[in-house]
Amino acid sequence: MRYKKRLNALIRKIETERIDALLVTKPENIFYLTSFSSDSVALVVSPNKCFAITDFRYAEAASNEIGGFELIVLNNTLNTFGKAISAVLDKQKIKKVGFESRAVTFSQYRNVKRALKNKVLVPTEDMVESLRETKDTGEIADMRKALAITKATLREVKRLLKPQLTELAVSRYIKEAFIRKGAGGTAFEPIVATQPGASQPHYNTVSEKKLGNNKPVLIDMGAKYKGYNSDLTRACSLGKINSKFTGLYTILIDAQRKAIDIIKPGAKISDVDNAARQYIANKGFGKFFGHSLGHGIGLEIHERPAINHRNNDALKEGMVFTVEPGIYLPGYGGLRIEDTIHVTKKGCKVLTDDIDK
Amino acid sequence: MRYKKRLNALIRKIETERIDALLVTKPENIFYLTSFSSDSVALVVSPNKCFAITDFRYAEAASNEIGGFELIVLNNTLNTFGKAISAVLDKQKIKKVGFESRAVTFSQYRNVKRALKNKVLVPTEDMVESLRETKDTGEIADMRKALAITKATLREVKRLLKPQLTELAVSRYIKEAFIRKGAGGTAFEPIVATQPGASQPHYNTVSEKKLGNNKPVLIDMGAKYKGYNSDLTRACSLGKINSKFTGLYTILIDAQRKAIDIIKPGAKISDVDNAARQYIANKGFGKFFGHSLGHGIGLEIHERPAINHRNNDALKEGMVFTVEPGIYLPGYGGLRIEDTIHVTKKGCKVLTDDIDK
Repeated sequence: MRYKKRLNALIRKIETERIDALLVTKPENIFYLTSFSSDSVALVVSPNKCFAITDFRYAEAASNEIGGFELIVLNNTLNTFGKAISAVLDKQKIKKVGFESRAVTFSQYRNVKRALKNKVLVPTEDMVESLRETKDTGEIADMRKALAITKATLREVKRLLKPQLTELAVSRYIKEAFIRKGAGGTAFEPIVATQPGASQPHYNTVSEKKLGNNKPVLIDMGAKYKGYNSDLTRACSLGKINSKFTGLYTILIDAQRKAIDIIKPGAKISDVDNAARQYIANKGFGKFFGHSLGHGIGLEIHERPAINHRNNDALKEGMVFTVEPGIYLPGYGGLRIEDTIHVTKKGCKVLTDDIDK
Repeated sequence: MRYKKRLNALIRKIETERIDALLVTKPENIFYLTSFSSDSVALVVSPNKCFAITDFRYAEAASNEIGGFELIVLNNTLNTFGKAISAVLDKQKIKKVGFESRAVTFSQYRNVKRALKNKVLVPTEDMVESLRETKDTGEIADMRKALAITKATLREVKRLLKPQLTELAVSRYIKEAFIRKGAGGTAFEPIVATQPGASQPHYNTVSEKKLGNNKPVLIDMGAKYKGYNSDLTRACSLGKINSKFTGLYTILIDAQRKAIDIIKPGAKISDVDNAARQYIANKGFGKFFGHSLGHGIGLEIHERPAINHRNNDALKEGMVFTVEPGIYLPGYGGLRIEDTIHVTKKGCKVLTDDIDK
């Protein structure tokens, strides 16, 4: 039912775009449309009929799990995806077919183009991704579960933090705890950053550096659950934190609040970004906040909507994204706060508001 | 030193291919050339000078960690990779630049092409990947460490197997053990497959199915260590296994032996595949072994060399790949044995021969 609805929404988009069919090859999009997970599947979605093409290794699973698609398994004659797609399009008398230009490599494009001699291949962007932008009830439940594992892990970690622990040991603890608590894995490599390392927004936690005392430790992490990602950042205190750091943290909390306060369906995304950005600039740290305010999150860790000052789209009910202002002072240190927001009918719900700041 | 040598080998290839420079954007290739990990870096490698382009988030880390490249950080003027690459090429008077056609998406290609108005963009394939095909001593050490973690985990799991455990519980145990033993994570989602599920070569382990008794359980798993992947498959016995399964397993052991016996520098890869394939066919199971005999392994779980009956290339010293014959009987069950082979000066070393079959 859930998949039928998504497929129908995609077919309406295909009709609007004036193409006869869409090739779907990006794994997250295939999972969204079929619940099937594989990097060796291609879907041909057309208003008339839908096909799923795969190879020997996934044939049995695909035939059990993919409903509403006619299954085609590569064999000695149809031995490439290009040939199989071509055969399907010929049979369906399809002339003009879209492909996912942000996922298909140049080399795949060239191979498929060669196989589809007399067809028109049309580059498309974000046709399935734009459907994925708003989440349904089932998706919100899975995302809440991913966040619940992440939050429970952070609470556990906070109780364990000690100056003599290393960044790497904490990162390893987080990854183990995620699995123990039922996650499929990590959404991304956890960041456990002491100062001044945390002045790098994407600090690479590979060091045996000890957490030490009297400096905030930045922890940015997320578990993955049934394909859905989560993402949460807090600065944790060890010992006595100086007033410069606590001052910066207060600015971030207030900046984040300014942004969250205006989140509701219809609000302009650039206004949300600017609310936090302007506040940080007014406090004198504008040039030390170099990244976007946030990012959509779901089957990909970064997906639509992009939350930045150039995006003038309006927010919609069902969108889920992070709001994560940061201040990074090279050589001194950095701080960031990150929460996940769900846009509801009349406003929004901060899905991570039960974790202290 | 290690990186300098790799870069020089790439520059020699660039000169042979008659291009002036190569854009390197695939993360594994960037890691191989610089030891730097990021999905937001582009390298411009030319015989004259090399450049690394990144954004604000990675600027500090890149400046600390990437040696031998001039670092360019995107800013308000050079605000896209296309513009920054264009500026570098103009400055270096470069006209003809290669790109990695198997990694660059169609959309990235189009954006870069637009930015590089008067330049010739040449699709290349596997320029860095072909260097990565043979491993150096340091890489072999990291791969042995990844395998050591995988082997230790399998030994632990074998002692714990009980009929009432579920596939999913074992998979979760494996993932936790990898982290506990020092892995960065899993090379791929572990496969823990009871029968008849194991007749699917890429069985998706998400079920609460109990292991049960008197049937082999297929376990295919690998830890990741410092970016390097490992991959190992064994069938584990619980209770008394019937003679049909033990017969199939003996065929696989013998087929694998036939292949491994002829592995040495200079041997034709198709001969290695055929040695196992022919043996399985002679035993009457040819059509139930539908995949390649194996795959190269390293920074990617599947990389060069492809070990199949169509690849007539010769093996070289330093190659590392899996040899994994399987027999899959739909509805009844499946078995596979997988070892990792390192091609040495005069023959080969089975890196996983200390794990019972």
